[in-house]
Amino acid sequence: MTEAFDAVEVISAKRDRQELSDEQIDWVVDAYTRGVVADEQMSALAMAILLNGMDRREISRWTSAMIASGERMDFSSLSWPTADKHSTGGVGDKITLPLAPLVAACGVAVPQLSGRGLGHTGGTLDKLESIPGWRANLSNSEMLAQLEGIGAVICAAGAGLAPADKKLYALRDVTGTVEAIPLIASSIMSKKIAEGTGSLVLDVKVGSGAFMKSEEQGRELARTMVELGSDAGVNTVALLTDMSTPLGLTAGNACEVAESVEVLAGGGPSDVVELTVALAREMLTAAGRDDTDPADVLASGRAMDVWKAMIRAQDGDPDAPLPVAKHTHDITADADGVLTRLDALSVGVAAWRLGAGRSRPGETVQAAAGVVMHARPGDSITAGQPLLTLHTDTPERFERAIEALQDGYDIGADAPSRDSVVIDSIRNT
Amino acid sequence: MTEAFDAVEVISAKRDRQELSDEQIDWVVDAYTRGVVADEQMSALAMAILLNGMDRREISRWTSAMIASGERMDFSSLSWPTADKHSTGGVGDKITLPLAPLVAACGVAVPQLSGRGLGHTGGTLDKLESIPGWRANLSNSEMLAQLEGIGAVICAAGAGLAPADKKLYALRDVTGTVEAIPLIASSIMSKKIAEGTGSLVLDVKVGSGAFMKSEEQGRELARTMVELGSDAGVNTVALLTDMSTPLGLTAGNACEVAESVEVLAGGGPSDVVELTVALAREMLTAAGRDDTDPADVLASGRAMDVWKAMIRAQDGDPDAPLPVAKHTHDITADADGVLTRLDALSVGVAAWRLGAGRSRPGETVQAAAGVVMHARPGDSITAGQPLLTLHTDTPERFERAIEALQDGYDIGADAPSRDSVVIDSIRNT
Repeated sequence: MTEAFDAVEVISAKRDRQELSDEQIDWVVDAYTRGVVADEQMSALAMAILLNGMDRREISRWTSAMIASGERMDFSSLSWPTADKHSTGGVGDKITLPLAPLVAACGVAVPQLSGRGLGHTGGTLDKLESIPGWRANLSNSEMLAQLEGIGAVICAAGAGLAPADKKLYALRDVTGTVEAIPLIASSIMSKKIAEGTGSLVLDVKVGSGAFMKSEEQGRELARTMVELGSDAGVNTVALLTDMSTPLGLTAGNACEVAESVEVLAGGGPSDVVELTVALAREMLTAAGRDDTDPADVLASGRAMDVWKAMIRAQDGDPDAPLPVAKHTHDITADADGVLTRLDALSVGVAAWRLGAGRSRPGETVQAAAGVVMHARPGDSITAGQPLLTLHTDTPERFERAIEALQDGYDIGADAPSRDSVVIDSIRNT
Repeated sequence: MTEAFDAVEVISAKRDRQELSDEQIDWVVDAYTRGVVADEQMSALAMAILLNGMDRREISRWTSAMIASGERMDFSSLSWPTADKHSTGGVGDKITLPLAPLVAACGVAVPQLSGRGLGHTGGTLDKLESIPGWRANLSNSEMLAQLEGIGAVICAAGAGLAPADKKLYALRDVTGTVEAIPLIASSIMSKKIAEGTGSLVLDVKVGSGAFMKSEEQGRELARTMVELGSDAGVNTVALLTDMSTPLGLTAGNACEVAESVEVLAGGGPSDVVELTVALAREMLTAAGRDDTDPADVLASGRAMDVWKAMIRAQDGDPDAPLPVAKHTHDITADADGVLTRLDALSVGVAAWRLGAGRSRPGETVQAAAGVVMHARPGDSITAGQPLLTLHTDTPERFERAIEALQDGYDIGADAPSRDSVVIDSIRNT
């Protein structure tokens, strides 16, 4: 087969700050998937993209080319409108768990293809797998049947969606080219667009526990993804949300499921409830169902019914007791005062080190490991009270988890102002 | 073995415009040679270096690390001082052929480890291999014996010198990362320093037929290499020379040998003589022998004696007839006037397409293929006179060679000013 372009020519163009043509982008993504463009060529191109950027047309075309590398799902046979949500990942971010059944209970189907955690951010599938019996892998027909029957499914993404992205993501991970907004945006959006959702709400997190540390970077990523969704005909909106402190009072797997169930039962930490309802509202609006107030539906208990049906449909037992860690360790307050800071990254790293997360794809995680917080920033503290409880099955992990939390919190005199979790919304203009 | 660094950490540092530490550089070059740093990681790093640069300390350390990857030669046992020359490559650049015997005839030994051509620039070994019987590969002891006995050797570089550079150069070639001055400079200088020469004269070419198209780039490369030589204790000077038009009246293999022999016999084109004498003068000065005038030695015929001895020592017959092409084609002038421009790149590409050069390492070249020029810029032209004669054994190659020369020359009314080949000299300050 004669190739339309030469890899060095395409790499050199981006290296020299030229725009890549549609044809060059289509070719390089396809040729990389076929193995004609080698890993060492794609990594050089990724670095050139990271340092020299891509414009809106280029990113949009790159995303389309990644979608074209695999299969696309189609939910048009459903009797429901569909909406999907994606979070860029954070500490204690269990929002998908109460959100999917809540939105389904409001009349919009949620096909939530999720991933596993890596590093200090947890994965939705890891959390749900702490429920006895629950399975992440569904066939396409099982998924469609569950969506039609219950309205919500959270499962593993099949290997057929955007294989170019899978290959490229693994390459970026080992070549220092993860941190490129055009590549991050196209990676996320290629999968979400290939999933075939009618509308999409993005939760772009900023702060120490997030991938995007600064609000400015988060805004750029959000804007780029909203543009990509719009260019692909998917009604997309992004919420910029705070990840300087963990979401809720738990970071781990089973403990986050328990907290999610509390929210579905009408309780739970106020920040988790706030973000769940805010995202549900955006998803309903994006799907054209803004006549329903998700806060009312949450209070009615109908979301809990969908949750139980959703878990049962995937062979899980929603009423079974969740795993409990063999060992716990309390970190107690050494002074009276107010918790003025609780750092998301510190808590995330501690939970990871306790066994809730993995360092490499494929490693197993501990269902019961994690950090339970007894206070949030702004709460009053009494000297000697437990501030954080660490859970693990392997007590040799405590030392390094405690180390991660060393400078992770402050107790002071004055309560910080309690800001809303949602910083801003970014919509297509 | 526990590795001192992580590849992603080193790549990310350069990506984020940080200076690499000596330890990071030593590790990454060594780990790449060992295969612990993968090609796709090194190519991402090379692109980051290309776009974000390295400072003098980093380039110097990078060069040392590449030298440390292999063996070093040692000429200290010789009774001669030594001087080496490196050209960045051009069209019709046969200067090494008369230069090495000339400098040896002046009392300074020249250990000239050379390469083969790629693309439109010819290779010194390819040219010499058109001499019946001549062989490029010598053992280290053969090389030392020839240097001591004759004072000049031109042969293939052994595989043991700077293996990191060999591996990295092959990688850069396919990843669009050739054009990085820190990497070009360290590639050239690592080999030259590992060769163990006492002094070094660089011929940095600028213009259409050169790798560096602009004088500014050429100056930067020259300055960088002079600094590297100085940092390594090798007395180094660079001449910046013109490569907008071919050197001499021949571009090919056997035809360039014939032209070199003319120069050694006291004739030859004035630009070839000028550059040969200028480089010889710099090499003698660098080696502390500036009491000898190379122009006088050239006129004396002693350089021709060394040439013949040098060719014979490597099994070549300096008196044997050189190969002649099976087919020739003349391009004639279509007007009276003055040749105002003859483009080096056009002539180089034509010679390459005629079979004098190769597209991939390992391809064979035609000894007799090439372009013979009948006029140089500034010469008067009569309509109908042959301007260029194309030589090849494979006449189907004429068409694309003629195409390359289509816009390669101009005939006008006014003679251009004839500038010196040597534009400037760059010395350590």
